[in-house]
Amino acid sequence: MSKYVYFFGGGKADGNAQMKKILGGKGANLAEMTNLGIPVPPGYTISTEVCNYYQKHLSYPEGLKEEIEQNLRRLEQISGKRLGDSENPLLVSVRSGAAISMPGMMDTVLNLGLNDKTVQGLIKSTGNERFGYDAYRRFVQMFADVVLQVEHSKFEHLLQAKKEEKGVKFDTELDAQDLKDLVREYKTLVKKEKGIDFPDDPYQQLEKAYEAVFNSWNNERAITYRRLHNIPDDLGTAVNVQMMVFGNMGNDSATGVAFTRDPSTGEKRFYGEYLINAQGEDVVAGIRTPQPLERLKEEMPAVYRQLEEIYQKLERHYRDMQDMEFTIERGKLYLLQTRVGKRTVQSAVKIAVDMVNEGLIEKEEALMRIQPQQVDQLLHPMLDPKEKVEVIAKGLPASPGAAVGRVVFTAKDAQEKGRTEKVILVRLETSPEDIGGMAVAQGILTARGGMTSHAAVVARGMGKCCVAGCESIVVNEKEKYFAVGEIKVKEGDYISLNGSTGEVILGKARLVQPTLSNEFAVLMKWADEIRKLQVRANADTPQDAQKARDFGAEGIGLCRTEHMFFGKERIPIVREMILAKDKQAREKALGKLLPMQKQDFKEIFKVMQGLPITIRLLDPPLHEFLPQGEREIEETAKEIGIPKSELEEKIKSLKEVNPMLGHRGCRLGIIYPEISKMQARAIFEAAAELVKEGIQVIPEIMIPLVSEVNELKAQKEVIVKIAQEVCAQEKVEVNYLIGTMIEVPRAALLADEIAKEAEFFSFGTNDLTQMTFGFSRDDAGKFLPLYIEKGVLEQDPFTVLDQRGVGQLVKMGVEKGRKTRKGLKVGICGEHGGEPSSVEFCHQVGLNYVSCSPFRVPIARLAAAQAVVKSRK
Amino acid sequence: MSKYVYFFGGGKADGNAQMKKILGGKGANLAEMTNLGIPVPPGYTISTEVCNYYQKHLSYPEGLKEEIEQNLRRLEQISGKRLGDSENPLLVSVRSGAAISMPGMMDTVLNLGLNDKTVQGLIKSTGNERFGYDAYRRFVQMFADVVLQVEHSKFEHLLQAKKEEKGVKFDTELDAQDLKDLVREYKTLVKKEKGIDFPDDPYQQLEKAYEAVFNSWNNERAITYRRLHNIPDDLGTAVNVQMMVFGNMGNDSATGVAFTRDPSTGEKRFYGEYLINAQGEDVVAGIRTPQPLERLKEEMPAVYRQLEEIYQKLERHYRDMQDMEFTIERGKLYLLQTRVGKRTVQSAVKIAVDMVNEGLIEKEEALMRIQPQQVDQLLHPMLDPKEKVEVIAKGLPASPGAAVGRVVFTAKDAQEKGRTEKVILVRLETSPEDIGGMAVAQGILTARGGMTSHAAVVARGMGKCCVAGCESIVVNEKEKYFAVGEIKVKEGDYISLNGSTGEVILGKARLVQPTLSNEFAVLMKWADEIRKLQVRANADTPQDAQKARDFGAEGIGLCRTEHMFFGKERIPIVREMILAKDKQAREKALGKLLPMQKQDFKEIFKVMQGLPITIRLLDPPLHEFLPQGEREIEETAKEIGIPKSELEEKIKSLKEVNPMLGHRGCRLGIIYPEISKMQARAIFEAAAELVKEGIQVIPEIMIPLVSEVNELKAQKEVIVKIAQEVCAQEKVEVNYLIGTMIEVPRAALLADEIAKEAEFFSFGTNDLTQMTFGFSRDDAGKFLPLYIEKGVLEQDPFTVLDQRGVGQLVKMGVEKGRKTRKGLKVGICGEHGGEPSSVEFCHQVGLNYVSCSPFRVPIARLAAAQAVVKSRK
Repeated sequence: MSKYVYFFGGGKADGNAQMKKILGGKGANLAEMTNLGIPVPPGYTISTEVCNYYQKHLSYPEGLKEEIEQNLRRLEQISGKRLGDSENPLLVSVRSGAAISMPGMMDTVLNLGLNDKTVQGLIKSTGNERFGYDAYRRFVQMFADVVLQVEHSKFEHLLQAKKEEKGVKFDTELDAQDLKDLVREYKTLVKKEKGIDFPDDPYQQLEKAYEAVFNSWNNERAITYRRLHNIPDDLGTAVNVQMMVFGNMGNDSATGVAFTRDPSTGEKRFYGEYLINAQGEDVVAGIRTPQPLERLKEEMPAVYRQLEEIYQKLERHYRDMQDMEFTIERGKLYLLQTRVGKRTVQSAVKIAVDMVNEGLIEKEEALMRIQPQQVDQLLHPMLDPKEKVEVIAKGLPASPGAAVGRVVFTAKDAQEKGRTEKVILVRLETSPEDIGGMAVAQGILTARGGMTSHAAVVARGMGKCCVAGCESIVVNEKEKYFAVGEIKVKEGDYISLNGSTGEVILGKARLVQPTLSNEFAVLMKWADEIRKLQVRANADTPQDAQKARDFGAEGIGLCRTEHMFFGKERIPIVREMILAKDKQAREKALGKLLPMQKQDFKEIFKVMQGLPITIRLLDPPLHEFLPQGEREIEETAKEIGIPKSELEEKIKSLKEVNPMLGHRGCRLGIIYPEISKMQARAIFEAAAELVKEGIQVIPEIMIPLVSEVNELKAQKEVIVKIAQEVCAQEKVEVNYLIGTMIEVPRAALLADEIAKEAEFFSFGTNDLTQMTFGFSRDDAGKFLPLYIEKGVLEQDPFTVLDQRGVGQLVKMGVEKGRKTRKGLKVGICGEHGGEPSSVEFCHQVGLNYVSCSPFRVPIARLAAAQAVVKSRK
Repeated sequence: MSKYVYFFGGGKADGNAQMKKILGGKGANLAEMTNLGIPVPPGYTISTEVCNYYQKHLSYPEGLKEEIEQNLRRLEQISGKRLGDSENPLLVSVRSGAAISMPGMMDTVLNLGLNDKTVQGLIKSTGNERFGYDAYRRFVQMFADVVLQVEHSKFEHLLQAKKEEKGVKFDTELDAQDLKDLVREYKTLVKKEKGIDFPDDPYQQLEKAYEAVFNSWNNERAITYRRLHNIPDDLGTAVNVQMMVFGNMGNDSATGVAFTRDPSTGEKRFYGEYLINAQGEDVVAGIRTPQPLERLKEEMPAVYRQLEEIYQKLERHYRDMQDMEFTIERGKLYLLQTRVGKRTVQSAVKIAVDMVNEGLIEKEEALMRIQPQQVDQLLHPMLDPKEKVEVIAKGLPASPGAAVGRVVFTAKDAQEKGRTEKVILVRLETSPEDIGGMAVAQGILTARGGMTSHAAVVARGMGKCCVAGCESIVVNEKEKYFAVGEIKVKEGDYISLNGSTGEVILGKARLVQPTLSNEFAVLMKWADEIRKLQVRANADTPQDAQKARDFGAEGIGLCRTEHMFFGKERIPIVREMILAKDKQAREKALGKLLPMQKQDFKEIFKVMQGLPITIRLLDPPLHEFLPQGEREIEETAKEIGIPKSELEEKIKSLKEVNPMLGHRGCRLGIIYPEISKMQARAIFEAAAELVKEGIQVIPEIMIPLVSEVNELKAQKEVIVKIAQEVCAQEKVEVNYLIGTMIEVPRAALLADEIAKEAEFFSFGTNDLTQMTFGFSRDDAGKFLPLYIEKGVLEQDPFTVLDQRGVGQLVKMGVEKGRKTRKGLKVGICGEHGGEPSSVEFCHQVGLNYVSCSPFRVPIARLAAAQAVVKSRK
């Protein structure tokens, strides 16, 4: 015969923590604590198997009734109380509890077992009539709401009416008679709403409660939640029936919470608060102020000592900081719950490192204790969580951190005003020309664009707070204001941004600056020791490169050369090059760019001395460099000395329907080899000069957007020739590699052929995601958020690598590439390189490195270490 | 010991036609003819192995010299002449010849063996001094050019000077002395240019000629050609040495060409022309008019009879129409060459069918004799090939056929003027709004866009001639003219288009109308009997559907519903729907569209009675339906009754950076399910009404742009619900399928998951190619032509399916799809469905059908049959 019901109490339990599948999380934990000798109110758990049986047959398995009966008797024995007894009635709580915590299911019914008869027993045993009727009133309301499904607000209306009738403000001001009346009124309401009498028989109450729990497994909210979180439907929920204990039975009673370590600093001290003669709800209600736990030491020294013992036992047992709920009923301590305590990331780091030093956990486990995403909070300024702020809009949390400043609406204004005060740049959307303004701004707010829009990518690269795609603001760049509903924010007004939540806040919020603890450094050292993946950074400037080194990057995985083309003094030359009528004129303009590019590379090479630098040749379509507004076109035409109409014609002829899939990437270098030649010359001349100075330079030249090996072959020929020329001329050797981005689906499909020419691969998962899904990241804002809301997609594939789809191409690319070229170096340089689950995937498929924005380097280091730990399991 | 030299002559040869690899194509064929007993001038072939040895060692293999010596002796014996003999000298031709015909290699040296001494023998044996010195002069010039590499034009200068000196116009007017002088002058030139004496020793001449052939294997042009055509470098070339024969030795000599059947009609008759006392070159020079072959019957009856026998023997042997070159030297007939004769497609069809009826070939072979591409020529009007025309520009051959008409520049003008006269629509590029104008125009010319631009795709669908992407014309739509260089073509001027070559012709060219022969019908019947692939058509209107049936389509593989949205009366309602402020307003507009769409479907269903029709739900981004020009926006705003600025705002908000990857396809139906609902209702109401009338309707509803199974699932739910509603209401059963396009790379990667919901797949290889390559077909014109020119890509992947890359995804999609759903119906509906090599690929990977524009259906039927024949080999 199967076992369906598991008892816990009297220092022993039928189950334990390992039995979550059968007992649910809550049930298993109550059993575990009981077995540890912790005083837990006794009770029993009806297993999840019963739930599954019930779903299938809409009846209970044979023998269940008898088993429940036996356990109930045992509970009565241990508690010394009896269900339905008018002298010393047993009251119980009934709770659902699945293996995975799941909102949407029936939560809790307290005080079950009360009726007009048993309430007298409760009153007698406590000598407190008001307490008795208050418990009764609460029970009827909860049971009617949760089990009988009478609308909750209707009871609140009656309660409110009663308070108004008595002219009082708080529930606590109602007396026993009022509450007794309310019980009657509640029951009448149930009769009216559901046409049934409120069940007075405690056995019937119990049965109905079980049924309510089982039925809640298949209510709409629960089903939706399971579908969204891929929880199987046949997991089932358990039912936990537990003796009630009361912290409000007098001054020898109390209720409280305790933490085994300080959840905000991680300091090792016993920490918490409690209220004498109170229930859990009273702590929340905030009418009375709880006492710090130290006071309990004085008020109830024995109980405090017992609690201290328990906390040590629990922390040792669970080997993690615990958050406990306890109740003292007439001097007797009960633990109602213990769970792993929530904590700030600062405290998480300290606790993890301390516990290793205390010998409680291994380094590997310490590394697993920190969520890599949280590390972001350690590196950026944060809004002071204690301050109340006025959130006026919410966009996408595009780049973490927080910022405060005066609003400006153009990059030019940002650059001018940003010199003397803190500014926040607000734009409809940003473009490469805004980079100067973005660099001086404290933060960036855009009305359009997604998590990988220009603003988002650049801001993350700069480690600067950014809220993007804030669709609810209407930006008027001309008249220099933005509006959210009635609120109008003008140039010069203060706003604050929370880039970790996407919140836009009116006025100056208080910021908290981050400081990196010693424990953090220790943890990162451990991560570096264990991880297999190297971590590089995406950096286009010497400043970014330095930041990357500071954060522990082991090289640059993506240096975008086009960012150098947008400089103020360069853009006119770039335009001259683009508008050139023939190759000769184009080469002339390129000749002017050469020394500038060379200087850029020299500076970055110096910073990254001894580490590899992947330099991507020019990638964006040329029209991105051309002027756009009416006035700017006029100015440019004048500068270059051609008629405006001619310039307009040229701009029109370069315009593309789908620039993403247009004339860009290596397609530029193939049509205009002179551009690649100039860039190669700049790289090798810079490298040669430094090598002569004794500086080690390791350039890895990367050809973008390759879809066919012949493209790479053609570009490689051009570059190798320049390299040979420069090295011969300068009489030095420069060690370099030539490789390619794998960012077009076809490149992954034909990676075996491409690897014949490529000395390394770097997966450009941003573009690869765009093309594999057919999603333009600039336009996906029109449907992607709704896709995620409706559950069509689980996650934004531009944030979290789509392992099922795009991941197949990555895997294929690695395998095919290495089939041709054994030991081929393979990395990733898309936005996903700093996203923990994507980093784990990169580890699994055998990449050599990930590359991400400098501020995400520590995240990637930790995620890479965790990937190793997980794979060992 | 290896054999290096193969003799042919005296009715026997060492080699045969199968030995192309060793003897090259030419050598093998000469051997074969000799073995057949055909009189071929005797000679020997030095094998390709010698070439490869020479390339490797830069010397000849041991024993070769002796072998050549032996074969030369044998040749002297058989011919009765001796190399270098002053009485009866042996003269030979030396030719290269690889297994695959390859331009760029050394071609031919004639009359080798002549010098001051042997020329006397030649004169003596012919009694013609002028003939002797003319042969000598030609030899020196050819040898110096081809073997010694003295620039050809320098000899022409000397020849020209001589003619001027003598005051004559033609070479033939120079006498023996002039030619003798020229030989001397030529030799002096060689000495001056190369510093060597012209080799007089015939043995030395031979040796130098061999060397020149072998060296030509590795000249730059040959290498480039091999690289472009994927010909292996170690194939090598053979050298053919053959006795010279002369058709200009008097009135008993002649030269000519003959065909075994009429190459332009296919009629079975012996056909050709000849010249008495002439050389091959004289036929080309066009100074004398050749005689029809019938005359030879009278002039040389014995030779004619011999020739007749030979032609019958050759045709029987090669089982194909032959094109022969012959020379009669003093009454003796020599065949110099026979090869499969070139022919028009009309004649090819007739010959193939006739030969089956004659028992000469099998049906399968007959099917292989027609190039499917050529079939196009049978279906469209053609320019009269006999007329001389003025080609002013050349664009892409976007849709075959030819057209003549007066130029118009707007769709509106086309519709107005097209009623009374023939017009050609000239546009910068076309958009869906131009469809009405395109339908009435004879042909379409655009300045922009590629082979799969809107103009090209629509024109092919209509079977209408189109030249697209003609970049050299400058179109001024406002002032209604276009210019090419100095030429200005105004509205109303006549032009002609050749859609098969891309040529734009000034004025009215003569057209030849196609007529379909009985033989064509027979051939198509044979094709249908053998092929496995079904052939459907892409058709959006009842007219197209009828055309498709006429051409033998077995269903519609793609019915694009958006084409129905562009109708003149509908577009305002479509715009009302797009601009709707809420769902209710949108549903109101959709309600107006419903009866129209329903009527469309009813008509198509009627035409296609009993055959399946794949209907694709709305696909393009909504902004494509909105007005674009200033004036049109104003008009539309007035029509709808909203301020112009509001309309402009809406248009701006719908604008996309990359519409190709934007809010389109099923993404529309997911965000606005009411659109899919309306379309489903139109389909099922139309079907239900017809089913009641006893008409069989088989709709297959296709969801576009799916990248994730959940998208399909969501849309399927919506459609199934409507289907059930309509069927219940109308009390009929409609058999239908719901499937999806596989056109996004991710869909192919996850085809196993998608097949859980999809009842059929249709590969949309146009979009799949765009996304797999990352090529926007609207923009690829900027680099794709150059890619193909430079050999980066072999073919335009929008025309010929990229089997290596995109094909991998197709294969994967089929395999994964059928893994989940056995026997899943899979088709293709991209432009590739009518391209022969792509059709073959579709057969190989096991597709059920291809779908193409109606005019390509016969091509696809033939290609599908050929695929079966090829796979059997």
